[in-house]
Amino acid sequence: MKELEDRIRRDGRVLAGGILKVDDFLNVRIDPVLMDHIGKEFARLFEKDKVTMVLTIEASGIAPAYSTALALDVPLVFAKKARSANLGQGDVYSARVRSFTYGRDYDILVPSRFITSADRVLIIDDFLANGFAARGLNEIIHEAGAETAGVGVCIAKCFQPGMKLLEEECLHVEALAAIEAMDENGIVFREMKSGEEK
Amino acid sequence: MKELEDRIRRDGRVLAGGILKVDDFLNVRIDPVLMDHIGKEFARLFEKDKVTMVLTIEASGIAPAYSTALALDVPLVFAKKARSANLGQGDVYSARVRSFTYGRDYDILVPSRFITSADRVLIIDDFLANGFAARGLNEIIHEAGAETAGVGVCIAKCFQPGMKLLEEECLHVEALAAIEAMDENGIVFREMKSGEEK
Repeated sequence: MKELEDRIRRDGRVLAGGILKVDDFLNVRIDPVLMDHIGKEFARLFEKDKVTMVLTIEASGIAPAYSTALALDVPLVFAKKARSANLGQGDVYSARVRSFTYGRDYDILVPSRFITSADRVLIIDDFLANGFAARGLNEIIHEAGAETAGVGVCIAKCFQPGMKLLEEECLHVEALAAIEAMDENGIVFREMKSGEEK
Repeated sequence: MKELEDRIRRDGRVLAGGILKVDDFLNVRIDPVLMDHIGKEFARLFEKDKVTMVLTIEASGIAPAYSTALALDVPLVFAKKARSANLGQGDVYSARVRSFTYGRDYDILVPSRFITSADRVLIIDDFLANGFAARGLNEIIHEAGAETAGVGVCIAKCFQPGMKLLEEECLHVEALAAIEAMDENGIVFREMKSGEEK
């Protein structure tokens, strides 16, 4: 998605350790017009996947997931993060996720009544790096007996293993901006296979 | 907003201790069409307030705040919650907030470069009960030398002190569904002063 790539080039900041900061427009301050276009682009890319609901994790996944859910006219559910694993109530699905940013584990929780075995679930998130978050959500979808219709991420860091791991699970994965390499001199984007709306 | 009141009557659940659960459609599972209408209604109610940005707190404020920001065509910023107060970096504004749900204090943080003294900030949140969150955001806006253009909440529990406290600070407060009283037999809504779009 050229609009997102251009914005990353203009306002993104590459930090040491493979970190890309996009908090000026994507995940702390949000440009609503860009986010609206992101949702419509995900809806176009997954329009043939019979999506019945969108699933994401709080907090930075919520805006792109909501904008996609609106464009697809399906409900959005967001998983909550919890530090303690004292659940065992049977009324939530949960998965253990490792945070790339904080280097520690946390649990993600979704009330079980919000996913049924009839659902085809589209996972949406802002970033795909090691794929921990998306794989945790995928686990919850399987736990519910539902199907994963696809995984859409605003930005994929293809030099980290997440993208490849999800594709190896035969999931339909789309990244609106797929970064091959980046350093202080610039960012190299991968050409997207699904093409872009004219 | 009749659409929201009707939905609360249909799908909300009143629990003991003044708790109203709306996680089926507003703050865990989100109905995107309802949320889109909520954003447009806030934009209408605050259209004369010269809003330059929308401010909320993660996570359940993000969807209504984004939908309002899109309708007003201004950026959205969300404050992050932190349990520890070890800040002192000078590059964030912070305020101490008491959580009604969890009964403990936490800090809310906004990178200081995202609010300038020229901003007129609209606070949006899903709930207004004791007003702790909105007052914390209002504090951050003052710390930045900016002005609070108004406070918009999806649901206000008028039997708790938040609404009154914000109005005493001469803020323009709007609640799309203002609850006078509720128990297991039903919910009584306050008639809204701003009227509704026909």
